Order: sequence, then C-alpha cells, then structure tokens
Amino acid sequence: MPNPPARPPRWIGSPDDLILVSVDDHVVEPPDLFEQTLAAAWKARAPKLIQNKRGDDVWSFEGRVLPNIGLNAVAGRAPEEYGTEPTSYRQMRKGCYDVHARIDDMNVNGQLGSMCFSSFPGLCGRLWCQTEDKALAHAVCLAYNDWHVDAWCAAYPGRFIPLGMLPLWDPKLAADEVRRLARKGCHAVSLSENPTSLALPSYHDDSFWDPVWRACVDEGTAVCIHIGTGKGIPTPSMDTPIDAAILATPLAIANCAADLLFARCLRRWPSLTFVLSEGGIGWIPYFLDRADYVYEHHHAWTGQDFGDQRPSDVFRRQMVSCFFEDPVGIELRHKIGIETITWECDYPHSDSTWPHAPERLWRVLEGLPPDEVDAMTHRNAMRVFQYDPFAAIPPEQATVGALRARAKHVDLTPIRGVGGKPPGVGEGEVVRMLQVAKQLAGALDG
Amino acid sequence: MPNPPARPPRWIGSPDDLILVSVDDHVVEPPDLFEQTLAAAWKARAPKLIQNKRGDDVWSFEGRVLPNIGLNAVAGRAPEEYGTEPTSYRQMRKGCYDVHARIDDMNVNGQLGSMCFSSFPGLCGRLWCQTEDKALAHAVCLAYNDWHVDAWCAAYPGRFIPLGMLPLWDPKLAADEVRRLARKGCHAVSLSENPTSLALPSYHDDSFWDPVWRACVDEGTAVCIHIGTGKGIPTPSMDTPIDAAILATPLAIANCAADLLFARCLRRWPSLTFVLSEGGIGWIPYFLDRADYVYEHHHAWTGQDFGDQRPSDVFRRQMVSCFFEDPVGIELRHKIGIETITWECDYPHSDSTWPHAPERLWRVLEGLPPDEVDAMTHRNAMRVFQYDPFAAIPPEQATVGALRARAKHVDLTPIRGVGGKPPGVGEGEVVRMLQVAKQLAGALDG
Repeated sequence: MPNPPARPPRWIGSPDDLILVSVDDHVVEPPDLFEQTLAAAWKARAPKLIQNKRGDDVWSFEGRVLPNIGLNAVAGRAPEEYGTEPTSYRQMRKGCYDVHARIDDMNVNGQLGSMCFSSFPGLCGRLWCQTEDKALAHAVCLAYNDWHVDAWCAAYPGRFIPLGMLPLWDPKLAADEVRRLARKGCHAVSLSENPTSLALPSYHDDSFWDPVWRACVDEGTAVCIHIGTGKGIPTPSMDTPIDAAILATPLAIANCAADLLFARCLRRWPSLTFVLSEGGIGWIPYFLDRADYVYEHHHAWTGQDFGDQRPSDVFRRQMVSCFFEDPVGIELRHKIGIETITWECDYPHSDSTWPHAPERLWRVLEGLPPDEVDAMTHRNAMRVFQYDPFAAIPPEQATVGALRARAKHVDLTPIRGVGGKPPGVGEGEVVRMLQVAKQLAGALDG
Repeated sequence: MPNPPARPPRWIGSPDDLILVSVDDHVVEPPDLFEQTLAAAWKARAPKLIQNKRGDDVWSFEGRVLPNIGLNAVAGRAPEEYGTEPTSYRQMRKGCYDVHARIDDMNVNGQLGSMCFSSFPGLCGRLWCQTEDKALAHAVCLAYNDWHVDAWCAAYPGRFIPLGMLPLWDPKLAADEVRRLARKGCHAVSLSENPTSLALPSYHDDSFWDPVWRACVDEGTAVCIHIGTGKGIPTPSMDTPIDAAILATPLAIANCAADLLFARCLRRWPSLTFVLSEGGIGWIPYFLDRADYVYEHHHAWTGQDFGDQRPSDVFRRQMVSCFFEDPVGIELRHKIGIETITWECDYPHSDSTWPHAPERLWRVLEGLPPDEVDAMTHRNAMRVFQYDPFAAIPPEQATVGALRARAKHVDLTPIRGVGGKPPGVGEGEVVRMLQVAKQLAGALDG
C-alpha cells in the first residue's frame, strides 16, 4: 500500500502541529435515526427509542428491548464515575449523539477526522443478523447506513470517515451494499472478528465470502474488524477483574489476525485490506516473528503455501492496525510497517485519551521524523479509506492548534453525578465481570 | 528476584559456549510408570498401558481410554511427517519416554537441563481432577510425582528440574504436596491457566487458594502455568488452519497473565512466582505498557490499588516468561526484565528447535553481554527453581560443546514412515482444526 509521492516534510514542533485522524470512535445513535432514511413501508417496524418504567432510554425492535444505548459512553465524566452504562441520553455528554456537539468535542481534542462505529446495533451490525425478518433487517441496515453517511458524516464535510454495516447473511446483498456505499463515498465496512459467532460461515469459506471480497477489492473498500465482535471478550471467569478484561481484549484480536493470515482470502485478493480496530500495535512484531517461525517450521505438514513471501509480508501488505499511545509499538514502528499504522481516539469510551489526546500522543511521537508522524496520525488513514479531508479543510486549518482555537467555548468541567448506578461493590472490593454483567442485565429491569 | 552476586563474566564466543537449561520440555510416560511408586493397595486400579485392537498404545484408567499417549511428540521426524499423533511408542523417538535416550538427545542438542511436563494426565494433572474417586486420584497423583522426581529426574543428577502435579481439588492436600515435593528437592508445580476449567474456584478465591500459595511461598516453589491448560486453544472455528492455532496459542496466555496481575494473590504474596510456560516473550512489553495504562486510566472506578507500584512492577517481580528464539523479545529484554526471562526447548513437540537449538538461539543471542546471555539461558531458571546443576556437573562440562562431544553416537537421521495416519486432507488443501480434532478422536476408534 504505497503512500502518494512524499511532500516536503512539514514542521512538527509541538502537539499543536499534529493533524489527527482517528479510525476508531463511536456514535450513540440519536432517537430520530430512522426518521428521514427509512422507507415509509418499514417505518412502523423500525427500531424505536422509548423510555422504560425507570426512565431509562432504550431501543425497542421486533419485540426486543436493547437497553445499553451508549455502552461505556462516559467521555467527560470524572474517572470515579466511569462505568459500563449509561442507560439514558441525560447521562451522556451531548457529543456522544449530537453531531454539532461532536464536532465541538473533536475540535477541543484537536481532532480533524473520525470514523464512528455504531452502538445499539452492535459494532458490526449483529442486531441485523439476529433479526428474523431479513427483508426488514436489510431495509433497516441500509437506512442506518444512509443516516450514517448522509446525515452524520455529511453534516461536516471532511470531518468524518464513513463506515457502513452490511447485510452479512446474504453475500450478494452484502456485495451490493459495498458497491452502493462506495458510490456514496464510503470505503469502509465493519465485519466480525469471527463470523461463526453470527451463525455465518467462517472466513475460510471462499464460496460464501468471495462476492464480498470482490466488491471490496473493486471499490477499494477496507474491512474493519473491531475488537469484541467475535465470541465475547477474554475473561477466564466471572470473578475476573474488569481491568484484566480491559487489558486483554485488544490483544485477543490476534486470534482473528492469525485466522485471517493463514486463510486463503488474503493471498487470493492481494489488495484486500483488513483493519484491526482498537487492537493496539505493540504486540505485532512478536506476532509477525512467530507467524514466520510457525510457517517455516510447520508448513511441510500443514500444507500452507505462501510462495516467495512470508506471512509477515502478507500481513504488512494487507493488514492495518491502530493505537492510542502504545510506546513500545511506536518504538517498533518499522518492524510493524510504518505505512500500516493508524491512530485512534475511542471517544466516547472510557479507554479514550479525549480531550488530552494530543498531549498524550506527543509523549510517544516527539522527536520522530515528521513524515512518519504524519503517516501514522493521518496520511495512512487517508490512503486506506480514500478519505481526503483537505478537499474541504486546508491543512493549516486542520492542525490541533487550529481546531482547538475554534473550541474555546467547549465546557470541559468533569461531569459528576449524572451516571447510572455504579457497579455494586463493597468497600475495598474491585469491580469484576460479574458486577458488570449484572449492571448490563439490570438495565433490562426497568 | 535478585540473582546471586555477579561472577566475573565468562567468554561466550560461539554456540558451543552456551549453557542451556530448558524450562519447558515434555516426557511421554513409560508403561512401567506406576510399578515402583504406587502403594500395593491401589495398584490394580492404576492407569495401565494397553494395546487397542488397532495396535495403538493407550492408557486405560477408571473405564476411560486415553489414546494420545504422546500428543505431538514428533521430535526427529521429517517435517512433512509432523502431526498431532503419535499413538504408539514405536512412532516416537526413544528419547520421548526413555530417560537414557533422553539424556543422549539433550546432549546432542547441547542442553544441560530440562523441566519435563507430563503428557497423558494433562499438563497440570487434569486427569486427576476428573477422577471421581479422589482417594485413588490422590494416590496416583503422588505416585506419579514420586516416579517423576525419584526415577526420571534422579536418574541423571543435575540434568532435570523436577516438576510436580498437585491434588488441586483439595487445597490442604495440595499444600501438603507442595511441602512434600520441596523436601524431595522439587520446587516447581504445574497449575492451570484457568482453574474454573477444572471446575475449581478461580484464582480470585483467596479462601480456596491461600493454603497453596502459603506453601509455595514457604518452600520457595514456583507455579508453572503452561499454555493450553485453560479452556482450550484459541480457534475461531473448526475451519481455522492449524497454523493459526499454533501461532496464537502462546499469546493466549496473556489472558491468564492479566487475570493474575489484577488478582489479589500476587500483591498479598509478594514472593509468589508464576512462570508462563511456552508463552513467548515478545508481546510482554506491549502488555506491560497497556497494563499500566489501564491501571492509571481506570482504577478510580474499578477499585484496584497497587499502592506505590504499577502493574508492570508486580509483573517483573513475580512473573517469569520463556522463549525459543523470539528476536523482538530479545531486543526488548530490558523492557521485559532481564531477570525474568528463561529459555525453553519444547522437546519433543513439533514447535521445538531440537536438535538445532544452540544455532537457532545464537542468531538472537550473538553479541549480547555474556552475563545477560547466561541469565536468560540458565541462571534465571536456576534461581527460580532452586536448581543447581553445577553441584553435579562443573560448568566447563555443562556447555553445548562439552555435552555434544559426549553425543557423537546419537543418530539424527530424520525418521520417516513411522508416523500414524497424517491428517486426512486433499491435494492443495491445508490442515484445519477439524482434521486435527478428527485425528485425535480417531485414535479412540481402535
């Protein structure tokens, strides 16, 4: 994936000079999501935002109640009040669901661009796959995409990288949607770490996936695989402290990366690109060393054939990763592949560095060659997703300093006391998977 | 875990000068395992090695047949004939199960010391946990340990690091066994990545595990956690190529490491040591960066308290890792903790570098300071396991060169045509989890 011809390097002397494009943020869907984009015939059956008896905001769809409208959307709260809720809009910063407030929040963080994953339908449209009436699911999936591209992203040209969901249960429909989205300027789609968790064929079933891959290759559309979209997060037991799960979940995308690396699809479609969303980068050099070792050591009995390449070559050609700050990953950037690294903010989730991303990033980027900084902070993302913010916003207006100058009015006082119930643990106890599971299930009680 | 006072560095100018102690090898149990060590009262019910109708060697115990006597014990075969069998002794190199031949095989690999994990009872004694009659399980577990320490390891003083299994279902009995083993000079025990996979309480249940940890701390006994001893290996589906599983399985120990790192036991027992067996090392700097990030970022709501330390400090104080060659891990050795790294050979499994370990290692160790090389190749293992090979073998007779000089008679001609059935795949197809599962299940048919 070559970058365009190098421009003369620009001066990057402080966090203010960075140009930041995040490939992993999240939108909490607003209540009027389906009003404009869903055909009238389906409107009565669209997901609806209602209030339950307790006053929580919940989505209602096909007899199901989906209470976690903004799972972990805690940006702006005091850290003691982070958690896995909220369960209503009033518990969230407006930037979670209102695009104008979102732009303010991006500006105050000095962030030029953002790719926003969905919330209530699941990060890769699990809800549509689980919907029995596939005609309805198809209509709602496309209407969601239309809202995402034509309302959310289009509200501020140059500020968003659009990202679509696919009707994954039908490869022909999915391929059609890849092409339809591309015509709308959307060159990213969100798929699962493990499609068998959606009762779909694995990524090794070429006859199922080939139409989708062909469409992605034809349209130059990248496939985003977000952590946590497979068979749950890695938790040895319900006693596992939530910290351990937060620590280990990004790394677990290595299972999907390994599965794809030894699948045929990457070698059969050498311009197909997978993006490991929120997976971190510092583990990748080890992973590539080990991939090459395993190939060299075992291929004679396993039957794998990479021709004159090694697995690490294929990874660097076709896989893209992203990081928050990841000091060791940045140190090892040339072992990963400087053209494969992108940055993410993860707004509005609790793991995010918002609104201090530029200063946090500077700790690991200060002193690096400017062309490497620009590659990792925005140029790679621009190439991978065919995203050109500078068509709308000149580079000198796109820096951290320039954007923050427009956000003087944004209130950053930590929000306190608006959260839902904290996970119920006693004095001196820690939050475990059990409490988080209970909290999420408890949202159903209202 | 400080090393003893530094000696003047010795000269290490070639692979011949290395002194190699492996903390992860495997023994395939010989048929006469229980003959000497099991009390007469239990002998009739001991696991018995029998031949099935097909002529495979299988263990029979309490009505169960255990066919995979030497899972993946393929050392010495031509690589095209690696696989997940063998299912009989005649398909294996004698060094797998005969201690005299094992010493020859260690010598020809220039390997001074070896810690050998068990095969048919599972790597941490899963079989004993699954045995209904706990009095029988206890007797057999202890008899196995006696064979391991007094017959296998004691046959060649200075050449083996003994490793015990525990009656894990009863913490009092387990603690007693830790102390009994220590009196026999054994300061290592094998536990599960995830005890809930053995229907035991998680590592967060202090009231269950405290007697075991107290015994380990009192006796200076290290707890070895081998990969694959939890809830299976990471495979997105049965279509997953076996290569992907081989690639991803070591890294999956990060889930256990995260679970332990945020458990109370490490902080409550600051001299308790866990060894991540076969987990590799190159991912650890990323893991520690992320552990500290997660702690800093989330502890205010999760309730974790590391006092004046960070999670990475606790990891370096109490966790030990090991590697085959792992170039990036060696490059980052000071970020991991030079005193926490040990080496492994993994004989006789297919991932092993035997009999070329010294030359493979030299690729990553050449040019490093000799004291760092010695720390990683043997001195750390000596400290962690209270193992002193030099009491029996002077250092000058313990080098790769000296040991190989004693092994001129060892035949290294690749073994061909003795394997069991290869996994059944067609021309141009690759070996997948499904074929491996069928091959393992097929061993039951005979």
